[in-house]
Amino acid sequence: MRLNYKIIFHFLGLLLLFNGGFMLLAGLVSLIYRDGVTLEIFLAGIVTLLTGIFMMVSTRNHRKEMNKKEGYIVVAFGWIIMSLSGTLPYVITGAIPSFTNAFFETMSGYTTTGASILNDIEVIPKGVLFWRSLTHWIGGMGIIVLAIAILPLLGIGGMQLFAAEAPGPGGDKLHPRITDTAKRLWLIYFGYTAAETILLKVAGMSFFDAINHAMSTLSTGGFSTKNASVAHWNDTPVIQYIVMLFMFLAGTNFVLSYFAFKGKVQKIFKDEEFKLYFKFITIFTIVAALLIYFRADITQSTVDHPMVLGQLESAVRHGLFQVLAIVTTTGFVSADYTAWTPFLTVFFFGLMFLGGSAGSTAGGVKVVRHLVLIKNGFLEFNRSLHPNAILPVRYNGKSVSKDIVFNILAFFILYMLLFIIGGLVFSMFQIDFESAIGLSASSLGNVGPALGDFGPVNNYAALPQLGKWWAAFMMLLGRLELFTVLILLTPFFWRKR
Amino acid sequence: MRLNYKIIFHFLGLLLLFNGGFMLLAGLVSLIYRDGVTLEIFLAGIVTLLTGIFMMVSTRNHRKEMNKKEGYIVVAFGWIIMSLSGTLPYVITGAIPSFTNAFFETMSGYTTTGASILNDIEVIPKGVLFWRSLTHWIGGMGIIVLAIAILPLLGIGGMQLFAAEAPGPGGDKLHPRITDTAKRLWLIYFGYTAAETILLKVAGMSFFDAINHAMSTLSTGGFSTKNASVAHWNDTPVIQYIVMLFMFLAGTNFVLSYFAFKGKVQKIFKDEEFKLYFKFITIFTIVAALLIYFRADITQSTVDHPMVLGQLESAVRHGLFQVLAIVTTTGFVSADYTAWTPFLTVFFFGLMFLGGSAGSTAGGVKVVRHLVLIKNGFLEFNRSLHPNAILPVRYNGKSVSKDIVFNILAFFILYMLLFIIGGLVFSMFQIDFESAIGLSASSLGNVGPALGDFGPVNNYAALPQLGKWWAAFMMLLGRLELFTVLILLTPFFWRKR
Repeated sequence: MRLNYKIIFHFLGLLLLFNGGFMLLAGLVSLIYRDGVTLEIFLAGIVTLLTGIFMMVSTRNHRKEMNKKEGYIVVAFGWIIMSLSGTLPYVITGAIPSFTNAFFETMSGYTTTGASILNDIEVIPKGVLFWRSLTHWIGGMGIIVLAIAILPLLGIGGMQLFAAEAPGPGGDKLHPRITDTAKRLWLIYFGYTAAETILLKVAGMSFFDAINHAMSTLSTGGFSTKNASVAHWNDTPVIQYIVMLFMFLAGTNFVLSYFAFKGKVQKIFKDEEFKLYFKFITIFTIVAALLIYFRADITQSTVDHPMVLGQLESAVRHGLFQVLAIVTTTGFVSADYTAWTPFLTVFFFGLMFLGGSAGSTAGGVKVVRHLVLIKNGFLEFNRSLHPNAILPVRYNGKSVSKDIVFNILAFFILYMLLFIIGGLVFSMFQIDFESAIGLSASSLGNVGPALGDFGPVNNYAALPQLGKWWAAFMMLLGRLELFTVLILLTPFFWRKR
Repeated sequence: MRLNYKIIFHFLGLLLLFNGGFMLLAGLVSLIYRDGVTLEIFLAGIVTLLTGIFMMVSTRNHRKEMNKKEGYIVVAFGWIIMSLSGTLPYVITGAIPSFTNAFFETMSGYTTTGASILNDIEVIPKGVLFWRSLTHWIGGMGIIVLAIAILPLLGIGGMQLFAAEAPGPGGDKLHPRITDTAKRLWLIYFGYTAAETILLKVAGMSFFDAINHAMSTLSTGGFSTKNASVAHWNDTPVIQYIVMLFMFLAGTNFVLSYFAFKGKVQKIFKDEEFKLYFKFITIFTIVAALLIYFRADITQSTVDHPMVLGQLESAVRHGLFQVLAIVTTTGFVSADYTAWTPFLTVFFFGLMFLGGSAGSTAGGVKVVRHLVLIKNGFLEFNRSLHPNAILPVRYNGKSVSKDIVFNILAFFILYMLLFIIGGLVFSMFQIDFESAIGLSASSLGNVGPALGDFGPVNNYAALPQLGKWWAAFMMLLGRLELFTVLILLTPFFWRKR
């Protein structure tokens, strides 16, 4: 099968058209707040829009069907072209003059990572800040359609398993139409964003902060309009509880939200991934909250805090907030989790490998994969005792095909391998062990805050230029479920049959 | 199938008999060197010997055949009972008065880890030091028979793949006779140890140091008779080259050495695992040596050393030595690898996950597993492009059954999971991130030196009591290929059918 570049360009053009339109929206926000960079943002939007239109028009007589290889290219280059064009509002307004920094910030935006190179967020013009949160929100939309409509067809990392409504894998042809399911899920995504905006406004945030944080939450991104992130509202717990609720929802499979609105609540509580996601969060929050409350080495039994209800509430709130922020890979910060106890540093580092639910906007390995890994691990013990018994992994009442389990095992191993390689590359830049390892786990998992010099109270500005490019590449790898990007780097992908 | 405790006790008794005999040998060494603790060591030996004889005699009318479950119990409890009885020479002589410390030291010995709690090795009586090295050597013998004759029958972690001569898996009955193959490999193990002893003596070591280091090398253990480990002989490079040669051999499948002595050299160079093992060591040595030589951040091009041949030799030697010491999981130290550059710290940390060849005495994941993982990873890309093609992993010209690949994937994932859990537990003892992560990787991989506070120039004495027990448990887990120990912790193992 020969690659048809026309269809590829056509779709990339469509993405630019779409992106340019969103830039015009940011320009509108800039106009409303009279931040002085309105013309620059509009210019960026028009350039992007026209480029997109030009690409679409010049390739309008493309073949109608896309094959798998073209699908891979559109997905990976789609994310890259979005990030490249997304730098324009930063560069033209001068908010982020360096191209490397601007590219890092947009890639971090579209991959919903939320790592930032901005030392002072609060001086950035409002239109540009809005654009920054919008890159998250657009990225989140992309991930939903990817998870529901595209990855299952490409057969990547067991994604066939989660797309409840999506057509099954098997065929070689890919129909890149956005399915009705994706449209319904976008509606929910939009509705949740609106709801969080309203609730945050009512709880006391300014409307601007509210909408930005809502977009950042639902996409599990993590960009904030404040230097202190959500810790800025430490005196208004209700705001933090609202953010937590929506982080939880954003890390849940959107298909389950759809079922909820359809009244099929029993489907949610039967979903094994959701149950494990819920259990993980509950258990990890209890552990974190207890440790924060006692702030003590758990191997010693000294209680150095009096039993004050307010402190207990604070411990539970920060514990839950940070567990949700890391597990859903949002990466908002309510407190510095690396400053509690050495145990909690390793604990939150470990949580970076969890990830939210499949079919959510969260990054990382994803709960369903862990579920299959755990179930298969137990079965493997049983298999070694009874080598002739056939013991398939069962998920939501159905037995999972061995190919899918295989796929998931290979995904996890590749993930760990890339994590190690990532850490090695970061350590080349004279970054210490803890920071390098943390950067690798955080970038690959699309979390945002890392450890050490790049922990929750720091940002990525101190990373050397090459390190920023490497981090951006790792974010892309993680976001596109590894295979989609790596397959483009294999020689046989480009071989003509 | 009901467990037959008689046969289990019988074999554990046999192990004690064997262990007691070796203690008497250490007593003899003590007598020769007149170190003043001869009677104490003989006492330990006689107690162990008599206990073993008593256990064997009282269970002499045992059933002849052992089933799989009994096999698992004998293997795991065998290592534990060896470690328990192995503490006697330490405790009775007072060389290591604390039972926890003595148990840690023996477990580290039998698992050929080589981590030590001794702050001053050189004051320990010679008979006890000889016993210490002997625990490594006995452990190495145990691992050879385990890898060749026992684990393939239990069907653990793809071990079926490596045991070239061993009978295939499938049956439920286990014949725990030591195969002829194992006996031949022991002969090679013994021969290598003798050869290294002679070479080290000729190169200038005392006979006592020579035999101790030879036992420690061939078992890929790492206990030294000097506080500075092999760095003690930094002025005698030939000694370090001899140690390197035998580390390399100890990390190679002993079956290949057997082929070499049979004149079938072509078999060695056709062995895919050996080729990868060789390539890994070559490439990693080049990287390490270059970085040590220039001692510079590789992202900067400053050369701060003049081109002196002696320095180049030293860089290559220390690079090769540390690569071999970590990859073969011996853990000898010629220089502090955590003091070079941040990159090399992460680099050696990464190497802790490699492990030597299967069928060698090395610990860790093992090269053949990485080979299968890498091959399967590439195939997984191909499979996602051509979902209907059947693409099996091929190893040494044969296609590997999907069950074995599955087994290896599950092994690796379990290994990484245990590594994370291990790090979490260590961090509970107020140990910092880098040290906790390093301890976990090093204990599980049976390496010895870790990172940070437990790096190559430190020892494990500073670990809290509970931490020592946890480290000992992790060493046992890693040494027995995870499944053998973990299966005993599952409820269905103990369920009667």
